[in-house]
Amino acid sequence: MEYDMKAKQQRTPPLLSDFAPFDLLEPPALERITASVRPIHAARGELLVQRDDRARGVHLVVDGDVKCFVLSPSGSEKIVRIAGSGAFFGEDAALLDRPHVVNAQAMRACELLLVPTAALRAAMDASHRFCTAMGLHLAAASHDLMSTLQLQLQLSSTQRVAHYLTRLAPEDAEHCEIHLETDKQTIAAQLNLTPETLSRVLAHFVREGLIRPRGRRGMVLSKLSQLRTCAAH
Amino acid sequence: MEYDMKAKQQRTPPLLSDFAPFDLLEPPALERITASVRPIHAARGELLVQRDDRARGVHLVVDGDVKCFVLSPSGSEKIVRIAGSGAFFGEDAALLDRPHVVNAQAMRACELLLVPTAALRAAMDASHRFCTAMGLHLAAASHDLMSTLQLQLQLSSTQRVAHYLTRLAPEDAEHCEIHLETDKQTIAAQLNLTPETLSRVLAHFVREGLIRPRGRRGMVLSKLSQLRTCAAH
Repeated sequence: MEYDMKAKQQRTPPLLSDFAPFDLLEPPALERITASVRPIHAARGELLVQRDDRARGVHLVVDGDVKCFVLSPSGSEKIVRIAGSGAFFGEDAALLDRPHVVNAQAMRACELLLVPTAALRAAMDASHRFCTAMGLHLAAASHDLMSTLQLQLQLSSTQRVAHYLTRLAPEDAEHCEIHLETDKQTIAAQLNLTPETLSRVLAHFVREGLIRPRGRRGMVLSKLSQLRTCAAH
Repeated sequence: MEYDMKAKQQRTPPLLSDFAPFDLLEPPALERITASVRPIHAARGELLVQRDDRARGVHLVVDGDVKCFVLSPSGSEKIVRIAGSGAFFGEDAALLDRPHVVNAQAMRACELLLVPTAALRAAMDASHRFCTAMGLHLAAASHDLMSTLQLQLQLSSTQRVAHYLTRLAPEDAEHCEIHLETDKQTIAAQLNLTPETLSRVLAHFVREGLIRPRGRRGMVLSKLSQLRTCAAH
């Protein structure tokens, strides 16, 4: 049974039409773009895109997590974005035929689809609906990037950590147990903090009774309204 | 004669169709969007958009310079972009109906056109060509923002200043006189440097014989290949 399942999985490559906005394409356009797509299996740590590489197309993450990052002069990573399943990256460089600005690396074993630039442009030309959806997607990418930039530049380190933690909790909860999305080093890089600063802020929150560690990646948030106030001021 | 010129200028409002990608719209769609556009005259220093304001539409800069910036916790400005004549800003927030992420302020007296969100969306629905052009514009905005982020995070202060100066010179020149685009305080904010750091780096370049000040905003770049090497390493 297990063997059959595995064989079946190997026979069924991930379908582009399972992912937005490609699900908007009509059969002929969808067939054309699907025919040109290339599946990529990436091992944990594999570099998928390197800064200054010419973009070959857009990478769609079918399964896994890919971090998009730049390196500071001291060699430390600054993560600008983590692309999870269903997200894509490199679409701006591909559409403009410009080199990639950031590096992209698989954070764990990943399945991806590479949609070549020409096929992406042809799909935009073939379908007005798809073109509009791509436009909105690009607007969202720009807006999200600006938000990241704004958070990293504007908020203090304490605010950034409080903001990160409250985002993992339900909106109205006062109390809850959360699970950190990744290891602390990655979280620090995402918040543009050193791991030492992140640890210092977390220790401060523990002393204030705002959080309580639970296991390796678990955490109890005990006074969420106070943490939200902290994120905002 | 001078009086006539002035009267004529006052009678002729700036035309949306003079600016890309609005020049791609066919007459009926162009008429509809033009009818809904609102002219804005902004005085130097006027705040056009405030962070967290709901976006009313996209601002097109007809004449002038608008800085888009966030404030750091210490209150210092970090300029993420300067939008000059023909550029627009806030299109991402408008298309997504989300609040603005950055502040926008007129750097000198500016003429703008505000294109309301509904009119922008209607134009995208009416014209596939316009929709594609907006998509490419949004891709470019995202790519440029990522490049800014990358430069600010990755390059050292010396590299950032060298990069800024070489960008103002013709590509192959070894020698040239340039005119700084804005005052030093604004340049420092654009490069995410303190004004003191910018002055220190410029003084260092003067000592090394790479640059020579000339007047208030003028500068002679004498060894451009060396400056380019400095920007890259």
